Amino acid sequence: MARLNSNYLKLKAGYLFPEINRRVKAFTDANPAARLIRCGIGDVTEPLPSSVRRAMHEAVDEMGSRESFRGYGPEQGYEFLRHAIAENDYRGCGIAEDEIFVSDGSKCDCGNILDIFGDDNRIAVMDPVYPVYVDTHVMAGHTGTGSDAGLYEGLVYLPCTAENGFVASVPREKADIIYLCYPNNPTGATATREQLTAWVDYALANDAVILFDAAYEAYIKDPAIPHSIYEIPGARKCAVEFRSFSKNGGFTGVRCAFTVVPKDLECATSFGEKRPLHPLWNRRFSTKFNGVGYVTQRGAAALYSPEGRAEVAALIGHYMGNAAILLGAVRDCGLAVYGGTNAPYIWVRGPQGMTSWEIFDKALGEANVVVTPGGGFGPAGEGYFRISAFNSRANALEAASRLRALSWK
Amino acid sequence: MARLNSNYLKLKAGYLFPEINRRVKAFTDANPAARLIRCGIGDVTEPLPSSVRRAMHEAVDEMGSRESFRGYGPEQGYEFLRHAIAENDYRGCGIAEDEIFVSDGSKCDCGNILDIFGDDNRIAVMDPVYPVYVDTHVMAGHTGTGSDAGLYEGLVYLPCTAENGFVASVPREKADIIYLCYPNNPTGATATREQLTAWVDYALANDAVILFDAAYEAYIKDPAIPHSIYEIPGARKCAVEFRSFSKNGGFTGVRCAFTVVPKDLECATSFGEKRPLHPLWNRRFSTKFNGVGYVTQRGAAALYSPEGRAEVAALIGHYMGNAAILLGAVRDCGLAVYGGTNAPYIWVRGPQGMTSWEIFDKALGEANVVVTPGGGFGPAGEGYFRISAFNSRANALEAASRLRALSWK
Repeated sequence: MARLNSNYLKLKAGYLFPEINRRVKAFTDANPAARLIRCGIGDVTEPLPSSVRRAMHEAVDEMGSRESFRGYGPEQGYEFLRHAIAENDYRGCGIAEDEIFVSDGSKCDCGNILDIFGDDNRIAVMDPVYPVYVDTHVMAGHTGTGSDAGLYEGLVYLPCTAENGFVASVPREKADIIYLCYPNNPTGATATREQLTAWVDYALANDAVILFDAAYEAYIKDPAIPHSIYEIPGARKCAVEFRSFSKNGGFTGVRCAFTVVPKDLECATSFGEKRPLHPLWNRRFSTKFNGVGYVTQRGAAALYSPEGRAEVAALIGHYMGNAAILLGAVRDCGLAVYGGTNAPYIWVRGPQGMTSWEIFDKALGEANVVVTPGGGFGPAGEGYFRISAFNSRANALEAASRLRALSWK
Repeated sequence: MARLNSNYLKLKAGYLFPEINRRVKAFTDANPAARLIRCGIGDVTEPLPSSVRRAMHEAVDEMGSRESFRGYGPEQGYEFLRHAIAENDYRGCGIAEDEIFVSDGSKCDCGNILDIFGDDNRIAVMDPVYPVYVDTHVMAGHTGTGSDAGLYEGLVYLPCTAENGFVASVPREKADIIYLCYPNNPTGATATREQLTAWVDYALANDAVILFDAAYEAYIKDPAIPHSIYEIPGARKCAVEFRSFSKNGGFTGVRCAFTVVPKDLECATSFGEKRPLHPLWNRRFSTKFNGVGYVTQRGAAALYSPEGRAEVAALIGHYMGNAAILLGAVRDCGLAVYGGTNAPYIWVRGPQGMTSWEIFDKALGEANVVVTPGGGFGPAGEGYFRISAFNSRANALEAASRLRALSWK
């Protein structure tokens, strides 16, 4: 008798965003005239850069003649894109082209990376946290059951609170694999060079691996804040980095990202020998993936052209302008506000005694603004909510005005 | 100390196609003047249909204004594409739109589907077989070590030989999950309605699941041969089907495919209760995937337009014309030849005493034609080689002429 993976049955409710969609649909079905403004899911809204569209048009045309047609490409990505990434994103960090793996999304990579690790690692995640990190370990059977608050047995949670500036401290207990995400989703916090150095030192001392999610690095304004974990000495020996074109180039509907696995990064086999991870990830790419489409990769490469870089800068400027507007509005309400200066997310402490979903329902029902309930990111997010700055300027202004008018008493 | 997945270390040599690439590169480095013809990897060569290119151009333009911009789409695929698939590929089979999951490739789906099954299933694969089915189970720790011939302990192998027409018979021993691929890669064999009915009956009687890989269904000419497992009564309760736009629409470099998981298909939990698989696969899509890009999905949908269908028919006609030419050439050499009439692959028994890699090296060295060594698909493929019909007509004619001139004594 065929058996399913019973670990899936341990997952609590729906994944956060489908649950938000469900509530929003129920509301709009009941209130068809309401003009909703979505500041929930972190999805870009502005047009795809013209340099990207031009490159994609050219690539589509190339597919139209036998001489320039492209079938299967290298599973790991075309050299033209890997080269552009190495040159532009990792200059001075010593990352080589063949340490870069082009994929169809950081969400996919964050989940798929589990394939190359053993099942007996101790996993540490920040709390609150991007739900994918936790859920993929639940699905892989690396946890026990979940509590009502959403904590799973067997994971090490690293609380991120206003007290520690939402930056996880190195734990006393041992962890083998640690997820770090900076600029952070959902809190908008960033980690300083010193804080990241402490983590790299911890990982080197404990033979641990840091999975560093830098999907929002383009939003860093402060020149003192590292964009990559590889700016920290020693990180090549202990860190994997995830990056995406979703939030800088507006690729959420195009699908392109990449992961860096340095060749110096080693883990133990079941016999305790140290072996590099790079060949395993390479093998996974060869066996379970067939590369990102050519047209898409040409589009991504265009983001590194002078025109593309200017367009990315304009997009970031636009969204961070929204962030300033929204941040001001919630601050004016007298709520404690975090993030929103080096990240496109604003993290707000709701009024005492209100749960995150109560805040969500109030913002939806009274202001017709969709936010993201902080508790959906983990127990330490309970009582908070996240506002996304991904919107048109008109919507950001209108959302700010409506949020300012809400009474939180 | 972080541990890697030691199961990867059990994998034999490289994945077949990277090894072919390595040998081809060594040959061309040593013989830069040789004009190679590639009949190895099953990669399409003809231009992407104009209906697809037009749809992709239009979709790229839509991404250029805020009003028509598309960010994250439904992880499972846009309704317009799922609807076109249900209407065109599954009319009369009772497959609903929400049982269709649009992905970036059948190779990915064949690998990722393991996520939703338990680790304690007995897995049956045909021999010879598409290497991905076996390798993904090795990587997941579902096998013991591999023999020198490439057989892994713990798998049930179903030999496909000239004697059984390369169609696997229902085994005496029990299997929980069975991979079937028809039209077959690599042998080019097809399964009759009666043969597939025997498999569905077996699966229903044993509570087993059939993973049916129909990536090459568009090449079936014989009207009596089923294109989908869902043409067989009862299959909705026991089968998953994989399909791809790679080989019908020439999408190997575009990346779009789909998998069907019927809602009637149930498996046992670890407590022995029966539960549907559909919610698990849906959850995997939501949590570890972010959908296929909008431009790509628009391109795929164009294949179902009247113009797109005519272009697909022309592509199939072209490649099957090549197949007839190549099949005639190897038959003229006095070799036993299979496949090539309802599939784009020709499966050839090499001369007695030659291994598959010896045949590969001879074809490469003497005819400068790249074929695929049959042994790379499993022990029962040893002594055979596969010729792919994916080529320009000029190359197919030239390859046929060179292969005809080879002396196999």
